[in-house]
Amino acid sequence: MSSIVSERSEISPILWDGEKLKLLDQRLLPRERKWVECRDSLSVARAIEDMVVRGAPAIGLTAAYGAVLAARESAQSSKIAWGKDFFHRVAVIRATRPTAVNLGWALDKMIETVSLSNLDQSLVTLENCAIGLHKADLAANKALGDFGAALIEPSSCILTHCNAGALATGGYGTALGVVRSAARRGLLDTVFATETRPWFQGSRLTAWELLEDGIPLTLLAESAAAWLMKSGKISWLIVGADRVAANGDVANKIGTYSLASLASQHSVKVMVVAPSSTIDLKTAKGELIPIEERNSRELTHINDLRVAAEGVDVFNPVFDVTPAELVSVLVTEMGSVPRPSAPAIENLLKNRVTGL
Amino acid sequence: MSSIVSERSEISPILWDGEKLKLLDQRLLPRERKWVECRDSLSVARAIEDMVVRGAPAIGLTAAYGAVLAARESAQSSKIAWGKDFFHRVAVIRATRPTAVNLGWALDKMIETVSLSNLDQSLVTLENCAIGLHKADLAANKALGDFGAALIEPSSCILTHCNAGALATGGYGTALGVVRSAARRGLLDTVFATETRPWFQGSRLTAWELLEDGIPLTLLAESAAAWLMKSGKISWLIVGADRVAANGDVANKIGTYSLASLASQHSVKVMVVAPSSTIDLKTAKGELIPIEERNSRELTHINDLRVAAEGVDVFNPVFDVTPAELVSVLVTEMGSVPRPSAPAIENLLKNRVTGL
Repeated sequence: MSSIVSERSEISPILWDGEKLKLLDQRLLPRERKWVECRDSLSVARAIEDMVVRGAPAIGLTAAYGAVLAARESAQSSKIAWGKDFFHRVAVIRATRPTAVNLGWALDKMIETVSLSNLDQSLVTLENCAIGLHKADLAANKALGDFGAALIEPSSCILTHCNAGALATGGYGTALGVVRSAARRGLLDTVFATETRPWFQGSRLTAWELLEDGIPLTLLAESAAAWLMKSGKISWLIVGADRVAANGDVANKIGTYSLASLASQHSVKVMVVAPSSTIDLKTAKGELIPIEERNSRELTHINDLRVAAEGVDVFNPVFDVTPAELVSVLVTEMGSVPRPSAPAIENLLKNRVTGL
Repeated sequence: MSSIVSERSEISPILWDGEKLKLLDQRLLPRERKWVECRDSLSVARAIEDMVVRGAPAIGLTAAYGAVLAARESAQSSKIAWGKDFFHRVAVIRATRPTAVNLGWALDKMIETVSLSNLDQSLVTLENCAIGLHKADLAANKALGDFGAALIEPSSCILTHCNAGALATGGYGTALGVVRSAARRGLLDTVFATETRPWFQGSRLTAWELLEDGIPLTLLAESAAAWLMKSGKISWLIVGADRVAANGDVANKIGTYSLASLASQHSVKVMVVAPSSTIDLKTAKGELIPIEERNSRELTHINDLRVAAEGVDVFNPVFDVTPAELVSVLVTEMGSVPRPSAPAIENLLKNRVTGL
């Protein structure tokens, strides 16, 4: 039986040099490896909105560094009344994308470190907090990768959707963190990845980062996933999450609900992988998670090439909600929760205060 | 309650002028409306293989006209031993695509009209047979459109997949024939169409031909279909077929099995619409239908633009099989079969000998 063996990935889409934030432009991958430099908080907000960077944990970390830049800008406008300006700039970053909870979570963590009466100290603690969140995210991914891999049977074929990889996080990845850890243990027979319309996160990003790590994968259209499952080959569907509600409902890339529904019909187990920062106890259930709709152009055009007939209407929600009952296991850096439910998640998070 | 009202479509992708076959190039729609001229049987075979024309009934009609050209070529090579050459040329056309049964069905109908001892008469009967099949297909589509529309409730929202329209047939369409007939009766609230990866038959072809007819529609990625169904809006999934097995299993565009499975989970009814020529009594069940896989480039590239990371493997089956138990009703020009099964289909086809 063949199995995939790979080395550890050090790809990170987010680089901070103390002065500016460099983001690997995920709109251009894999054709171009270009870095976008953000020297102010507004350009950070734009980079999140325009999807230079995407993926819930990566958006949170980017926003955190944006808050560092925001505080420095506010300090230049007024040393005394800097706080109001700072909160305004942070609000601009917060408003960029609605579904991923990590964006607001990271900004809340940053704001907690601020002492309005001590600007100099706040500038230091903000930068330290952002760097700390970044390091903690990478460490969390390696931990959850191992928790997830422990559940994978030898010679498994797994299916993943979108990109919940190094590119979507501070590094190593969530769903792809599990894939990486499982590959290092020699547990994987084949990795299948959906191309992930409309943004092609699967064919552009997941394919690129796994091949960079020497992990071969097979790409398919979303429409072929049920047919693949019917062949009996797939043992696990492994995906990330943009927000997990208190009851275990999972908001993730559009198509996750479809794949999880099909998985339950085909005896394929569903693993949702996310750092505990993705769990939003303030949102009781999935119906309450705001679902972003993006521009119709994402469906009608590929780059500047018009594909669809002119004048057609478009329905383009970019996330959906998978009910907890379709999830076999939720894997976090704090451990795994089989058949997630409100009490089980509450129990897992008892120690989160001192965690991430 | 708004409803869609439209005039009848006269779009046809296949034109025969007695000398040559003109095919509307479906690779270029909707950006360019260009006709490919086929003056010999080999160019007809290439046009089918390269998908200048696609859709099971349209492939069958194109092949029939190809057989007319084949006979004329054979007549030029030898007036006496023309038959062997003719059968060879027909075999080349037959081998182009494996899944749609209409290709072989139409060629068998053509061959039945041939009298090897009478070339001149055969040339006449072949052309008459091709034209007759073409007219019968158009008439069948108008009939099945009405049978299907009779099942649609007022103010319905329907979802269709791929293109089973005028462009896939001799005109009017199968699944879209039902949509056209239902729209003329004012029964439709909204038409949703999947974009249909990898070939974009939905966004390129279905959107174009319905908008040409004044029928508005809303496009979505395949991955959003389950989420749309969950909203409770959709009452019918309406699709065509490339081959219906004797037991009612349906081979159709990849993704049909996925959508039909999701439909059954969401109380959405499934209507499969095809002329009776698509029913293949020689194939007992779906597992026996050959499923075509096409080039990996269909997933890795959009036209000449590389989308996917270099070196990725691809799984690209272009059809799948939906088991009969997921089909609510099979609609043909000979009538409808609720919950299709081998006895019900046999009963429907009792009169087919004198039919198409």
